[in-house]
Parts: sequence; structure tokens; C-alpha cells
Amino acid sequence: MKDLLLIGIGPGDPRQITYEAVEALRRASVFFVLDKGTQKDELVRLRKAILERYRPEGGYRLVQLADPSRDGQAADYVGAVQDWHRQRAALYARMIEDEVAVGETGAFLLWGEPGLYDSTLRILDLVREGGLAVRLQVVPGISSVQALAARHQVPLNRIGEPLTVLPGRRLAEQARIDNVVVMLDGQGAFAALDDPDLIIYWGAYLGTADEVLIAGPLQAVKARILQVRAQERLRKGWIMDTYLLRRTL
Amino acid sequence: MKDLLLIGIGPGDPRQITYEAVEALRRASVFFVLDKGTQKDELVRLRKAILERYRPEGGYRLVQLADPSRDGQAADYVGAVQDWHRQRAALYARMIEDEVAVGETGAFLLWGEPGLYDSTLRILDLVREGGLAVRLQVVPGISSVQALAARHQVPLNRIGEPLTVLPGRRLAEQARIDNVVVMLDGQGAFAALDDPDLIIYWGAYLGTADEVLIAGPLQAVKARILQVRAQERLRKGWIMDTYLLRRTL
Repeated sequence: MKDLLLIGIGPGDPRQITYEAVEALRRASVFFVLDKGTQKDELVRLRKAILERYRPEGGYRLVQLADPSRDGQAADYVGAVQDWHRQRAALYARMIEDEVAVGETGAFLLWGEPGLYDSTLRILDLVREGGLAVRLQVVPGISSVQALAARHQVPLNRIGEPLTVLPGRRLAEQARIDNVVVMLDGQGAFAALDDPDLIIYWGAYLGTADEVLIAGPLQAVKARILQVRAQERLRKGWIMDTYLLRRTL
Repeated sequence: MKDLLLIGIGPGDPRQITYEAVEALRRASVFFVLDKGTQKDELVRLRKAILERYRPEGGYRLVQLADPSRDGQAADYVGAVQDWHRQRAALYARMIEDEVAVGETGAFLLWGEPGLYDSTLRILDLVREGGLAVRLQVVPGISSVQALAARHQVPLNRIGEPLTVLPGRRLAEQARIDNVVVMLDGQGAFAALDDPDLIIYWGAYLGTADEVLIAGPLQAVKARILQVRAQERLRKGWIMDTYLLRRTL
């Protein structure tokens, strides 16, 4: 049996990691790092900084892998993602076979929360269905949603109201917005909403030195958010942002 | 100016607290503890255990207060909660005036995540509207929702799907359940759902020695969950539970 850890390491600030996560990462012999495209170098560097901080004595291996590319333009979104997950599963299975000896522990350091819009758990289910015997442990982490609420000092929900978290491509179909957090919104879906009663709390690179926050009535601040987003994406080569939309009472 | 910290301390396991939260609680001179009814003793004891673990040298004061009682049967739920918040705000204002000297730092240790179904931030907004000058810092914490997903080793959402988090009393009005997490469900609202395609991942006292987990097709396990809930509530005098409902594809 091989042990695998899925460790949530928070949104970017190395202090936004739990004691449980640090205990877990101190048990691992090998860390797997998969990142894509332009974000790659900086996100790998941030993970290395976390390891240097919490494993200063070293004694582990870091395995970096190029991520299979995904067809972002496919008409069948779910199907395209499932294909991509199967490719990743084959890659992970090989990597685990080759790099984790029996009795050793491998770990994935995951941004934010492993249960929220992260595919690693799903891919490892495919790996296990493929016949590889692994024992998993999942360690929760602070998500960018929580960092966003904390930095803006707002609750995610109002009294008794539901909170919905969704990817940008599902925003347009919401019949009614009370409290909606949007993640993975490459296109700026908020800009298409013309409801005058919405407030937005937006943040990018939360928990890092590059953090940017903007809040206000959506119609009043949306142009500025689009501008800052474009500017930051150009400057850094990538952007990670999230936002909360809320209807004023 | 007085400094106030709202610190998320996670769902119960003292290791599920962040380094940022511990840095914050090391800065406070006084901690405010409000709890209600039967849960009171144990939840106060758990907070004290966290302070003893992370502030072993002492040097702080602990202020315990009886919580104003709320009309749980009121027809106007939101109105009743707002009244209760106003009472709490008056109490908090007095407590902050009396217990936090200028230049000192007071702190609230909050279960889970300060932004999710916690009223402290809202009450402190009322305190500030009442004229008390305080400087706030909010520190996110692992919510019971995240502990639930980690213990069951399931993602909170499937590919591209929204996640909804809501209080038990809002469950019945959901037109369609894809991924719904229910919190604050005193009545067991899941038991009223007869959809044969739902799966439930349920957990109580997450992260503590009393943790209980049950998962399976809702119709097959709901009687057992109701029974375990009743039994545990009787044994401990209170229960804190949460669950994820998901439609099978």
C-alpha cells in the first residue's frame, strides 16, 4: 500500500496553512507538482517557498510534471474535462508507480481547498479504479473564497440566505442572485450583468504580495475591475481572481 | 482606537487552525466567549484547550458572557434574528468598552469560518454604526463544510457544477439539488426528501473525538442518520452536524 496526501495549502499566504497541513507535509517523501502554461513558474516557486519554510531540513523529492493540455474550446465542456482527467489519471498512475515506493508517502500540495473546484481527488479516484492501491488522506485548506470574505470583512451570506459558489460560465443562468461567489472566471462574466442592485466584492492574487481588492456597486466599479484585471494579467502573465456578488436589500 | 480580531479556529480539531490564526491569537490581551445553553460548557472548554495549546505562557483574560436568548419560534425569522443581533450588539459594545483598553487587542474565537453562517461580523458592524471606533481584522478558518468533504474524501462540487450552501430551513424550497451543503439543520430537513437519486454525506462533531460519519444513498441511510443524531444529541446534550446532498448522474 502507498500513502497519498492531498494537502490544501491555502490561497497564497504561507501563514494561511493549518497545523494539520504542516504535520502532513512533514510526513511526505515526495511532492508532485503539476501546473500549466504561464502560471507555472510562479506557482511552483510559491510551493517551494512553503516547503522551505515548513521543511527547512529538506529530505524530500520534488517531482514536476507538464500538465496535459485541455481543449478549452470544445463544445462539450464536461466531456472535454473528463478526457483531460483520464489523461491526467494515466500520468498520475505512472508517476505514483515510479516515484512512491511501498511504505513511502507522496503528497500533492493544492492551492486553496481540495474539495472546491480542484480535480485532484476526482483524478485519484480514476487512478484507483485503474487498479492502483493507494491510501488517501485529504487535508482541508483555506479557499480563496474565504480569503476574499476576510479581506473585505464581509460575511459570505446574509441572515438565513443560501450561498452559491459557481464557475464563471454558470453565472449567466442564475435566475436570482442573493449571495453568489464566482470562481474560475476567465471571461469576466460579471461584466454582462446589468442589474443595478448588485454589489461586488472582488479580489485577485489573494494572500500574496500582489493582492488587489475592489468593492462597490457592480455598475459603478465593473469597468475598473475589467481594466485592473487586464492590466494585472498583462503584467504577471496570469491572474487568479474571485468575487462575491450580492443583491442590496 | 481599539483593535478587534475575529479569528476562525476551525471545526473542532485544534490542528485545523492556521498559522495566521495562531499569530493573531498571540496578539490578543482579552478573549470574548459567548455561547448558549447546553453546548456552552463543552464549547468553552474546547476554546480554552486551544488557548492553552497556543498561548501556554498565559498572559490574557477570558471574558465569558451569557448569550441573549433568541425567539426560535417567531414567525418572522429574519426579524427575530435582527432583534437578537441588536441585543447582542449592545452587549458587545459594553463589553468592548469595559474590557479592551485603548491600544489593547480583543479577540473573538469563532468556530469554523467567520464568513459562513456566523453573526459576529454583522453584530460588530452594528457596534460600529453605534459609534464605537474599532479596527477589525478577520482571519479565515476551516469550516465544518470543508472538514466534512475531507473526511468523506469527496469534492464538494462535480465538474463545472455550482455548489449551494444553505441553512436547513431553506432546503425544502430547492427546485433542483446538484450539490447542496446544509448547515444549521436542527430539524433534519433531509428526511423529508424522497428523491431516490440523492446521495448524502453526513458528519457530526467533525474534527473532535466524537466525530461520526455516515454516507450512502439518502433513502437507504436516512433512518440511520436520524437515529444516530437523536442518540448523540441525547448523549452529549447538543449536536453540531452538516451534510452534503448530491444527485447521482
